Formats: sequence, C-alpha cells, structure tokens
Amino acid sequence: MHAITYELIHKDKFSRARAGILHTPHGDFLTPIFMPVGTQATVKSISPDELEELGAGIILSNTYHLFLRPGADLIEEAGGLHKFMHWNHGILTDSGGFQVFSLGELRKITEEGVTFRSHIDGSKKFLSPEISIEVQMKLGSDIAMAFDECIPYPADYNYTKESTERTHRWAERSLNAEKRNDQGVFGICQGGMYFDLRQHSAETLSEMDFDGFAIGGLSVGEPKNLMYEMLEVSTKYLPEDKARYLMGVGTPDHLIEGVARGVDMFDCVFPTRVARNGLAMVSPSTSAKGRLVMKNSCFTHDHEVLEKNCNCYACRNNFTRAYIRHLIRADEIFGLRLLTLHNLYYLQNFMRRMRESILADEFNNFREEFFSYCD
Amino acid sequence: MHAITYELIHKDKFSRARAGILHTPHGDFLTPIFMPVGTQATVKSISPDELEELGAGIILSNTYHLFLRPGADLIEEAGGLHKFMHWNHGILTDSGGFQVFSLGELRKITEEGVTFRSHIDGSKKFLSPEISIEVQMKLGSDIAMAFDECIPYPADYNYTKESTERTHRWAERSLNAEKRNDQGVFGICQGGMYFDLRQHSAETLSEMDFDGFAIGGLSVGEPKNLMYEMLEVSTKYLPEDKARYLMGVGTPDHLIEGVARGVDMFDCVFPTRVARNGLAMVSPSTSAKGRLVMKNSCFTHDHEVLEKNCNCYACRNNFTRAYIRHLIRADEIFGLRLLTLHNLYYLQNFMRRMRESILADEFNNFREEFFSYCD
Repeated sequence: MHAITYELIHKDKFSRARAGILHTPHGDFLTPIFMPVGTQATVKSISPDELEELGAGIILSNTYHLFLRPGADLIEEAGGLHKFMHWNHGILTDSGGFQVFSLGELRKITEEGVTFRSHIDGSKKFLSPEISIEVQMKLGSDIAMAFDECIPYPADYNYTKESTERTHRWAERSLNAEKRNDQGVFGICQGGMYFDLRQHSAETLSEMDFDGFAIGGLSVGEPKNLMYEMLEVSTKYLPEDKARYLMGVGTPDHLIEGVARGVDMFDCVFPTRVARNGLAMVSPSTSAKGRLVMKNSCFTHDHEVLEKNCNCYACRNNFTRAYIRHLIRADEIFGLRLLTLHNLYYLQNFMRRMRESILADEFNNFREEFFSYCD
Repeated sequence: MHAITYELIHKDKFSRARAGILHTPHGDFLTPIFMPVGTQATVKSISPDELEELGAGIILSNTYHLFLRPGADLIEEAGGLHKFMHWNHGILTDSGGFQVFSLGELRKITEEGVTFRSHIDGSKKFLSPEISIEVQMKLGSDIAMAFDECIPYPADYNYTKESTERTHRWAERSLNAEKRNDQGVFGICQGGMYFDLRQHSAETLSEMDFDGFAIGGLSVGEPKNLMYEMLEVSTKYLPEDKARYLMGVGTPDHLIEGVARGVDMFDCVFPTRVARNGLAMVSPSTSAKGRLVMKNSCFTHDHEVLEKNCNCYACRNNFTRAYIRHLIRADEIFGLRLLTLHNLYYLQNFMRRMRESILADEFNNFREEFFSYCD
C-alpha cells in the first residue's frame, strides 16, 4: 500500500511528455507540476494563502534547514510541518543530502552516513538514511526523499560508481527505516554524467518499492545538453506507473526539456530567488530573455503591468512596472513580494499550459513555439 | 469650501477626548484615528489589500522621500499616489520639513526655504512652502501639510521664537500656494517647549483658513510629561471644529494621552518598525511592557497565538509564537509581515476601542485600566 500514487492520464502522441495526477494524503495534484521551495517552512516573502491563490499545489521544504533550526522535534510537537506553517496542501521534503554535500570541506562521508558542521553555529551534526527519514517523518511531509549523495560535477568514473552504489545501499536503508503509513518515500537515481551508471542506477532503484523516483545530480554545473542526455537515460529506465521528479530544476527551458523526457515533478529556488534580485519572469514573446530586470531605467515611465493578460496578483491589480521598479530601487519588501507572486504564478501557469498541450497531443508545438522566441 | 472637514460626534463627559468623523475626498474616517506610515509609497512589507483588511483608513506617506525618489512628476504622470500605490482610501502627506531638518549639517535654512543634500545621492535640493505644496499637489494626497521647521530638543527661547515665527510665515505661504480643490492643507503649530510660544503658535495658526491643524515638534526627545504639557496648551487654543493631528506619535500610552488632550489623528512608524525588529505589540494585560520580543527563548515551545482573541491575520489563522519566533530567527520576511499585520491591527483595534469608550463617556476608565497593567 503506497501513500503516494501516480495516475497516468495521457501520453503525448509525439513525445515522451505525459500528463497525470499525483495522489497524496493532502490532495491530488495535476502533473507535470512545479513545486515552489519553502526552505525554512515558508516560501520566502509570501503567505500560504497567496501560495494557494496562485495555484501552487505542493511545495518543497528542506530537511537540512529544518533539522538545524527549529529542529524536527519542535515541529513534531507543533503538530507537524503542515500545521506549523499553516499549509494544508502537499509538502515534499528533501533528504538533506544535497545541502550536506554542498558543505564541501565541512562534511565527512562514511558508509554509515555524513558528519557535518552546521552553517548556523558550527556545531557537529550527523545525518544517515535512518535519521533523515526519522526527521522527515517528524516533519510529516507527504513525500520524504531517500538519503543520497549528490555527486559534484565533474567527478571521475570510479568515484561516481562508488558513490552511486553507496546511494543505492542508502536507498535500501531509507526504505527499510521506520515510517508512518501516511507518508511516501521517493528513491533518488544518481550515476553522474555516465550513461551506464545512469541506466544502472535507474534500474537498481526501480527494483525497490518506492512511491516514486527522483533524478538527482543534474543541473549541478554540467552543460545543458549533457544534462538532457543523462535525464533521457534516467527516465527511460524508470517505471511508467510511478512519478518521476527532476530535482532542483526550474527554468522554463529546463522544465520543457524535462517534461519532453517524461518528468512529472520539478522544484527550484529560481523563480523566488530571481524575484528577490529584482527579476520578473515573462514569456519569451514579451522579452527574448524571458525576464525583465526591474531596476533598468527603461521601466522608469513604464505604466504597464509586468506582462499583459497575466492574472497574477501584481498584474491583475495593475501594479505597474514603474511602481515595482520604484519599490525595488527603494529596497521595499513589497516589491520582492509582487515579483515573487508574479514569478510563481508565471511558472504555475506555464505548467498548466504545458499540461494542456500534452492532453491535446500538441506538446511539440508548445515546445517549438517557446524556443522560437528565445535568444 | 474645504476639501477636508471634521465632524464632531461626541465629547467625552469627563475628559477632553472626542470622537468624530474626518470627511475626505477618499472617504470618511472615524476619529480618533491612527495612520500607518507608508514612507516610500508602500507600508513596509504589506499590501494595500492587507492594509484595507486590517481596517486602516488613511495612511501617511513622506513627501521628502517621494520628492527624491521616484519624484513627484513621475507619480503625477502615473495618475497620482493613490493610483501609483494602488490605495483608494485616504492619504496624508507630510511636508518634507521634518526629514529635511533631521539632516542636520546637510541643510541650510533661509527665509525662502531649505537647501539640503539628498540622502540617496548627495545631490543639492531645495524645498520651500510653495515647492512642498506643489509636490504634494502632484502626489495628490487628500491632506497636504504646510511646510514648517521641526525645532530640535533642546532649543533656547530665542531660537524657538524665531523659528516658530518663520513657520507661521511659511504657513501663510503654504496656504497661499496654488492648490487643487480636491486636496486639503493642514497647518502645523510649533512653539518648542515654551508655554507662551505654544499658545501663540496655536492661536496664530487658528486664524488661518486651514482644513485642520497639526501639533508638530513633540516626541522629539523631551520628557514624556513635558510633551503632555505642551500638547495640552496646543490643543487648548485650536478650534473645535477642525481636526487636530499629533505628528509622529504612536505608542499606546502616547495615543491615550493625546486623545485625552483632544487629539483626533496620529501617525508613527512605531508599529511597523518594531515589527521589523521582531516585536509584537500586545495588551499590557498580556505583557506588562505591552510587547513580546519574539526572539526570546521563552517562545520556543509556545504554540499559542501572539494574543488571545486577536482577530488579526496572524492570530486568526493560528500562526503561533513558536512559528513566528522561528521565522524571525531565520530572517524570513514572512515573520516581519505577520508581526507588521498584527501590530497595525492591534493599534487599529486599540483606537476603535478608545473611540467606543469616548462614545460611552467611559474614556477615563479605558485610560485607567490601560495604565493599571503597565510597568
């Protein structure tokens, strides 16, 4: 019995893109789906009501950050992450692996797990597959992730092979760790930038009884085409009846290319982070780069909205480019909020349109039209 | 014909407190009223919808800041400040005088006006009564303020007298400056910390045909009792049929003592600024100091709301002290937003309850009860 199930609704006739429904204890979500990131139990600058209103169905929160602060016990005591942060829809938590491995010199890997130093106070901490799952069970996310090593790029064949094998053993341990039955666990394929290891990892993970599968270790600095090739292999060897999640990917071009290779779920800090840097995401038909740098003086007297016909809070209410530019230049939080709301809405709407194109067997047209406008 | 009128509804039988209605081109507002501050065409961190929802009727925006950035011409071109910032209720703009005089060494006063350097780029600027009114007319605020000098504390008698007389001449010039007929102008009484000058200033201003009167130059560092004494004189010599506005005052104790001396309007950055410092305003019956320092470890496991029975967005939706503490410690913007919403709601509700006590001739009980809980 799986807490999370994937229902395949339609496969595009001319590509590997697929539309489906992800069933979770906190609701059913249409896929392909983009999950906004709420690292520290909040999607930066916006409220749960706003998240709901813009159509976000499931968000990602970070085990590493919450493990360190405020701690999983506190969140469990508060009734779990959903209640703590007042979000009654889906939550996926990562395993902490990615952040821990990003610490570089500050961590040490053994077969048992990873010892590392907290980026907050330098204190010594330890995460293992069992502890990561325990923490995620306390957080109470709908989808927990198996503990894995995200292999840096570049990495040689031998290291990649060893690490991928360890990730498989950790996947097994994650699966065998004590779990609640209202939470699902996804395994994570690795394999670095090697075709055979990617295939081997996807096949090995597929044998395990996970609720879904993630593709990890991509978008870590490798060239775009290499990423697409590795993704192609990974998804090819994953089962059709379970959800596929490409971790840490969220620019529109990557989302399209991920969907084209059969991916159902994505997460990325991109839309929220660039909002805080003063960038508005727009269709490449509005701006070939697909983004507006709001500080630019060309917007000083621009009394139009960020994007025509956009139904986000900012555009719908006629907050203009000139006003948003003023707010960003004046370091006003409300400017970041408006851009965050716009960017997240842009991506939700983008995914919705992509799904519709799949249902109509027109995904390739959607894809071609998008890239025809790009630089 | 006045664009702004004050309607006296009820005078408390046992004090000088009064309840009224301020009629403006953008609506009628019940007084006494507290105006949140939206310095740069936004009340920091929150949206116009949230402002409306928490019951703020009229806000203050700063001429000095908007004059420098983005400039009055741009806001006029955008259709005025109401449209620019998407706020369809009352707006009062100050004259810029207070900020200019706060610049200290960076400004030079002549009879004509004040030359100063921008805090943003150091460029040389000039404000006079006529220019300040012109800027405020372009902004399109409902209530513009006459250009005055806010006298520092302490200041000797001669300087105070000279400055106050100049403020009177500037008031006359502000009144005679070209104006739109859908905007009102308030005069500002000064007089420093001298009884006779306070009386003289209130009497002199009263002779001029302003839409209302402000009491300036208080809460600038003087002892609390001295402020109350000066306020007492100022309001005593102002006409009963026009609104009285105590500038820059907004802690609950000062609000009560202002109302007790016949003040109708207040503004202050206090509730929004302390929110950004992680403080929640609560009734002194909840905490004798009337505020909670959210970073304190006593809130780590506190799963109650900021204040019981509070109907603000944060409390109504059960965002707990433990969660808000986590957000503040993690430097999350949403924490500041929740505290800002709570604090502004707290003050709006505080003013509403104060008004009800006046209407019931029970203001003195309200006042006594409040102070009985304080440290």
